[in-house]
Amino acid sequence: MNAEARLRECLARIEARELEVRAFVHLDVDGALAQARALDAGAVRGPLHGLPLGVKDIFDTHDMPTECGSTIFAGHRPRVDAAAVALCRAAGAIVIGKTVTTEFANMTAGVTRNPHRLAHSPGGSSSGSAAAVADGMLPLALGTQTAGSLIRPAAYCGVVGFKPSFGRVPRAGVKPNADSMDTVGGFGRSVADAALLASVLTGDARLREWAVPERVRIGLAPGPDWAQADADVFACWEHAQRALAPQAARCEDAALPPDFADVAAVQAAIQAAETAQALAFEHRTHRASLSDALLALLDKGRAMDAETLAAHRARADRWRREVDALFDRHDVLLTPSTSGEAPAGLQFTGDPLFCRPWSLLGLPCVHLPFASGSNGLPLGLQLVGRHGDDHRLIAAAQWCMDRLA
Amino acid sequence: MNAEARLRECLARIEARELEVRAFVHLDVDGALAQARALDAGAVRGPLHGLPLGVKDIFDTHDMPTECGSTIFAGHRPRVDAAAVALCRAAGAIVIGKTVTTEFANMTAGVTRNPHRLAHSPGGSSSGSAAAVADGMLPLALGTQTAGSLIRPAAYCGVVGFKPSFGRVPRAGVKPNADSMDTVGGFGRSVADAALLASVLTGDARLREWAVPERVRIGLAPGPDWAQADADVFACWEHAQRALAPQAARCEDAALPPDFADVAAVQAAIQAAETAQALAFEHRTHRASLSDALLALLDKGRAMDAETLAAHRARADRWRREVDALFDRHDVLLTPSTSGEAPAGLQFTGDPLFCRPWSLLGLPCVHLPFASGSNGLPLGLQLVGRHGDDHRLIAAAQWCMDRLA
Repeated sequence: MNAEARLRECLARIEARELEVRAFVHLDVDGALAQARALDAGAVRGPLHGLPLGVKDIFDTHDMPTECGSTIFAGHRPRVDAAAVALCRAAGAIVIGKTVTTEFANMTAGVTRNPHRLAHSPGGSSSGSAAAVADGMLPLALGTQTAGSLIRPAAYCGVVGFKPSFGRVPRAGVKPNADSMDTVGGFGRSVADAALLASVLTGDARLREWAVPERVRIGLAPGPDWAQADADVFACWEHAQRALAPQAARCEDAALPPDFADVAAVQAAIQAAETAQALAFEHRTHRASLSDALLALLDKGRAMDAETLAAHRARADRWRREVDALFDRHDVLLTPSTSGEAPAGLQFTGDPLFCRPWSLLGLPCVHLPFASGSNGLPLGLQLVGRHGDDHRLIAAAQWCMDRLA
Repeated sequence: MNAEARLRECLARIEARELEVRAFVHLDVDGALAQARALDAGAVRGPLHGLPLGVKDIFDTHDMPTECGSTIFAGHRPRVDAAAVALCRAAGAIVIGKTVTTEFANMTAGVTRNPHRLAHSPGGSSSGSAAAVADGMLPLALGTQTAGSLIRPAAYCGVVGFKPSFGRVPRAGVKPNADSMDTVGGFGRSVADAALLASVLTGDARLREWAVPERVRIGLAPGPDWAQADADVFACWEHAQRALAPQAARCEDAALPPDFADVAAVQAAIQAAETAQALAFEHRTHRASLSDALLALLDKGRAMDAETLAAHRARADRWRREVDALFDRHDVLLTPSTSGEAPAGLQFTGDPLFCRPWSLLGLPCVHLPFASGSNGLPLGLQLVGRHGDDHRLIAAAQWCMDRLA
């Protein structure tokens, strides 16, 4: 199929569904068509040749507004593309539009609905990107994660979400949230699709040249907050153990750090402090335009003294070393993505609780969508890899999906 | 002195000297005066109350253009202030203008001259900020460092330059260069001034509440590139040893990692790769507007494969651990800032060779200006601290300055 035909399929799906799903804040149909025709007429074929791409609206685009889910940025036109957008375009992707984000990629919901059940949240903060891919509007979309903004909406919408290792994808032109954790990643309908996108974002060709391994050493890491998971997640977990353990090279409990019970609180504290720094101008100058929830987070972050913050960071550094050592024994860690299916209602985008540990540690994560819960909404689990071993994580994820889905 | 009177002194100096020094790309005299009067009329006194501040032109400002030293950003008007600028303004600083940067904070020089000798370089990339403080136009100015862009111009201009620990100052709204090393810092006429500015940038009150210690444990770290330093630096080094060793708790050679000879090359390689990512849009879309030197750097960065880059990063991680352990024995490391005085000519901003190791490792650094070289231009040495120990580094720096200057 040529680029224009593929794009027209996406546009038809968007036309049929967007009024209900509301995944986009901005669509550039004419620009996308022009780009598709140029690609069809051209000789160059990049890794993303002709693939329509949605871009979370905290990524700068030189040819479309970038509003960050906030009236403070209403109609804002950046001078240049975010680096991640430029890399995708250079690889042949067609940016079809900007997708809905929560307010500054934090907790206050946008207008997007879950395409599987419109009265339920798609998750956040990369709401529109996950929903658009889940609904078949797009094969690929860009998102970011600071706490759980890629893995959670991927889980709620039933698509593959991939957060690469911290520090591997350029963040130039992406509105910052918490500098030590903000990570660019993406959504696809398959592990291979999400990895293909990440290969362009990272410049790491190994993410499109991997082979599924014979066997995988799985560390089971339900984690300190396991009791917060509901019966659907328990069932999912049982199914995964039954399907994976007999064929795995190893499938056993991973020995998480003894004080890992604090990990989510430490992640949340560091995020609050860094977000308060990053949004200092908005906080000071546009207070009335910020949601109460975001203001509360910023006030909490500003109130933290330097010694407390340093102590949190020191614990995070130690956990990074301790968890890194686990990967000598396990290729990947299996852990929940969420506490259950997408919550009902559009105000609450769900709890990032099960994503916070791996965001704090900067580890690569992939959501595996292979089940559904008692409401019939998508469900799955999360696979976490060693820092920098993104290509091995992806290969192990495919090994798992071959046995789970 | 009230804020307006102090500001008028700075403006008088700028008027007298700016045509020669050329530190600014943009001045906002009316805005600065209005802000000074508002501060004088107000009740609130922040830590930077009424202090005029220069801002390197890669920091976004909502009320002034931000051009990044490139015609690609000619006349660009950001929507919001960079977080660092907002924090300074909230603390009472008066942003008087934007200071000259090299092209995208890389190697291609801007128009600024060294205020001590107009035919010599002020260093880069934070050229205008260092020159303005050195010339008495401003008490404080913001800069950034990726390789040697704070410490080198501080050394060439004879002011205190302070690069805080990596990850402690928000970078939101600062044009990225190399994401794993870009660090916001600043210039002042004294250690205390530079630390005061950093206390606002980091939110760490310990940077304005330190006391000079009784004694300091100094590790001598001339480093693997010591042979590149000239006779002026040798003389400076001898003087420092004579002045500090008798009063130090310890003053002895620090045991740098055995393969540290590669550190500058590894830093340069990682920087090239990350800068090529960060400037992907400019590289693809505005090639003709980039300097040949920057294009060469970007091409070098793009040509690096993921495995090579990962190997460089693994070595950097190991060096971080090994050098961190040195601080059990030494409070600070003493090392050159530059290979000599400011070079003649305005095209070459000097070699960041002696700054690359500490930028790669993310350690806090301060330039101590206490000498002059055979051309009569400023000279000094660099003090490096443990990651996160910025307040202890500052206190040790004052201890050294008390004995050196």
